[in-house]
Amino acid sequence: MSDKKIPTKIYLTEDEMPRYWYNVRADMKEKHPPFLHPATLKPCTPEDLYPVFCKELVEQEFDQTNRFIEIPEGIREFYKMYRPSPLVRAYCLEEALGTPAEIYYKFEGNNTSGSHKLNSAVAQVYYAKKEGITSLTTETGAGQWGTALSMACAFYKMKLTVYMVKVSSQQKPYRKAVMETYGATVIPSPSDTTQIGRKILAENPTTGGSLGCAISEAIETAVTTDKCRYVLGSVLDHVILHQSIIGQECKIALDKYGITPDVIIGCAGGGSNLGGLIAPFMGDKLNGKSDARFIAVEPASCPSLTRGKYAYDFGDTGKMTPLLKMYTLGNGFMPSPNHAGGLRYHGMSPIISKLYDDGLIEARSYEQTSVFDAATLFAKCEGILPAPESSHAIKGAIDEALECKKTGEKKVILFGLTGTGYFDLAAYMAFNNKTMTDYIPTDADLERGFATLPKID
Amino acid sequence: MSDKKIPTKIYLTEDEMPRYWYNVRADMKEKHPPFLHPATLKPCTPEDLYPVFCKELVEQEFDQTNRFIEIPEGIREFYKMYRPSPLVRAYCLEEALGTPAEIYYKFEGNNTSGSHKLNSAVAQVYYAKKEGITSLTTETGAGQWGTALSMACAFYKMKLTVYMVKVSSQQKPYRKAVMETYGATVIPSPSDTTQIGRKILAENPTTGGSLGCAISEAIETAVTTDKCRYVLGSVLDHVILHQSIIGQECKIALDKYGITPDVIIGCAGGGSNLGGLIAPFMGDKLNGKSDARFIAVEPASCPSLTRGKYAYDFGDTGKMTPLLKMYTLGNGFMPSPNHAGGLRYHGMSPIISKLYDDGLIEARSYEQTSVFDAATLFAKCEGILPAPESSHAIKGAIDEALECKKTGEKKVILFGLTGTGYFDLAAYMAFNNKTMTDYIPTDADLERGFATLPKID
Repeated sequence: MSDKKIPTKIYLTEDEMPRYWYNVRADMKEKHPPFLHPATLKPCTPEDLYPVFCKELVEQEFDQTNRFIEIPEGIREFYKMYRPSPLVRAYCLEEALGTPAEIYYKFEGNNTSGSHKLNSAVAQVYYAKKEGITSLTTETGAGQWGTALSMACAFYKMKLTVYMVKVSSQQKPYRKAVMETYGATVIPSPSDTTQIGRKILAENPTTGGSLGCAISEAIETAVTTDKCRYVLGSVLDHVILHQSIIGQECKIALDKYGITPDVIIGCAGGGSNLGGLIAPFMGDKLNGKSDARFIAVEPASCPSLTRGKYAYDFGDTGKMTPLLKMYTLGNGFMPSPNHAGGLRYHGMSPIISKLYDDGLIEARSYEQTSVFDAATLFAKCEGILPAPESSHAIKGAIDEALECKKTGEKKVILFGLTGTGYFDLAAYMAFNNKTMTDYIPTDADLERGFATLPKID
Repeated sequence: MSDKKIPTKIYLTEDEMPRYWYNVRADMKEKHPPFLHPATLKPCTPEDLYPVFCKELVEQEFDQTNRFIEIPEGIREFYKMYRPSPLVRAYCLEEALGTPAEIYYKFEGNNTSGSHKLNSAVAQVYYAKKEGITSLTTETGAGQWGTALSMACAFYKMKLTVYMVKVSSQQKPYRKAVMETYGATVIPSPSDTTQIGRKILAENPTTGGSLGCAISEAIETAVTTDKCRYVLGSVLDHVILHQSIIGQECKIALDKYGITPDVIIGCAGGGSNLGGLIAPFMGDKLNGKSDARFIAVEPASCPSLTRGKYAYDFGDTGKMTPLLKMYTLGNGFMPSPNHAGGLRYHGMSPIISKLYDDGLIEARSYEQTSVFDAATLFAKCEGILPAPESSHAIKGAIDEALECKKTGEKKVILFGLTGTGYFDLAAYMAFNNKTMTDYIPTDADLERGFATLPKID
């Protein structure tokens, strides 16, 4: 730690902004196992994925060796509209906790999508446009990814169809309205616009849908439409690559003040925020230049790391995707309906899964009322009303800071504040009215999910 | 204009942030006429206002001579949590319009209250706390001010009661939820908690309420409760003083790059954003150092400047406030129910009114569908989903820029983007679905409002 006074917010100038994404796989001694083709169970080739994803993204997905990948100028120009995101010293939260720890958070919510998702959305649309693609499909659950992608598509004048989990589209009509304002077509999923959607509706006409099912519909539409591709907002390696902008900016900002984080904490659903935040710091660790700890925080109601299996599984319910080796609760797992917000995906990024399996990342889970407690304290101290997802990281950081209070340690804690909770006020209302409940899946619940894992060995 | 490349966003460092609010009244050759006591019709004294407002705020209200007023360190520390706000060069909007003009906007929406209102909220709560006040009351319409004040009160551990216009509290339950998350008590107005509320309910049990009526209830509660004061989010001189932080930051940022605005545009409801944005630039104009133009933009449905009278009027429906000389539609004027968002106050800041009457400010009005057209274009180009209020300034800026396109002039246009539209999506939905309508008050509508003006002379 230098003696330089740390401002409340550390911003980078445009000149200081990163010109490269950092590809953490290049520094991993052992890479995660390859994707398997769902039909042949053989490792996927890039050619297998071209009908689904843009070429450049497939190449990024398979690139496990290039450490730095230049961010194209067009994307850097877009980034300038809402980045750099502030790195904030949580002076007020520290004071409220009475901790000797220093707490920093990287705030990704200062854009209309309200989250970090825009970092990858713009990249994916940029490449699609460059390759002559004229329309994209995707899925969205809580709506952050769909909003981010709508913004990027509006900017690049790209057609977009968003399959939105039906129950979310009913609970969050305003999320739908934002996407429509940006020109996207939003279809509640399951829908009658796809074969898989019609099949699911025939089996269960009243289903509220799921992320896995919306993914299946989006992929089906992409592969059956001319000059159309599918884009995904988390889980995959190329998404984590784009999200490394978060960690890269963080590291430059901390380095300016000679600050070295001891603990880095992120919420983990599909893993893109966590993966992006920790990327360059993990690089230092993998190269023996840091002994920082990394903590993934997940909801107790969807505990893929803390209670899942490290196994090959499909990314979707319709079993259309390649098989990914990841921590998973089984593609048929559904979090209980009282679960608020995102972080409800059955699996976890293969990169994060591998790092976790190698003991390089720790994981913990929290019940949602304790998460909203942390969120409310944070909102009162730091002003920002956090997203339920992000609040998992807040809770993790608070617990670390309180541990420091006990031990007297002056640790430097960094966490990712991925977004704002402006579209999650129904959940805040439930919390304020004390009608919010917790649910921890029973072992039997988990067994039902694991039973949906594909049998391969 | 210097040759230095203008970044997309100009941020100030903490060291560059203003230490002083600028009091534009000090440079006005002729001040606005004094407030009149509602009972005696004599000019108010500070003592008249002490039961209602904090002492320091009353002194600021009466201070027409001190040019610079130091921002207390406590307030500057709070400002650091969400300020400086970015000054953005709207490169993408310029390109979309094909204009030779340079467009800049000062974005005040990067905080949870979603608007500039927090700038005065924190100041007012800070002084109240310092004077031993233990609780505050206020009113809110669209909810921005109530949210901002809730945030400031949570930070300073001050009790807060917000009288929220009943129809707004029904239409915007999430706004209410945010305020409650920050610990405020939100009461739909008119309510049975005050005499004036009970009187209004007795006369009209099904009324949806109005801002003027909510103000009356909040004042009644403040003056009848021990160690309680009333706070107001716009209109008054001390609010405009606090909001000068917007203009001060803007001017420092522009000066860094040698940029001089030719036209400065703000939306105008009560006038606090416009007054704060233009303050230091108007100072230059008053001192003969600038020939910039200033444009106030208001909704055609609530046209206090463009169609109102410059007259003494009450600030509230209950006729409890002092009389202010201002442009007004009459305290009984109500915008038609199809009007979306804020900017629905019957009057206008006495400072803005005086500057307008002196010909130093221009005014224009727009119908709301044209405003939402501008908002949607802006959202697509610049990423940010703007508040309906702010979108009036966007529309004004676009029209100026298109005028430059015709004439070939390279004007520098600066406008205030006061906030985000995340809580206004019902209005965006109506616009997207083409169910949004326009309404321009007829002369008869206006006459009904003017009939409620007090008869004094």
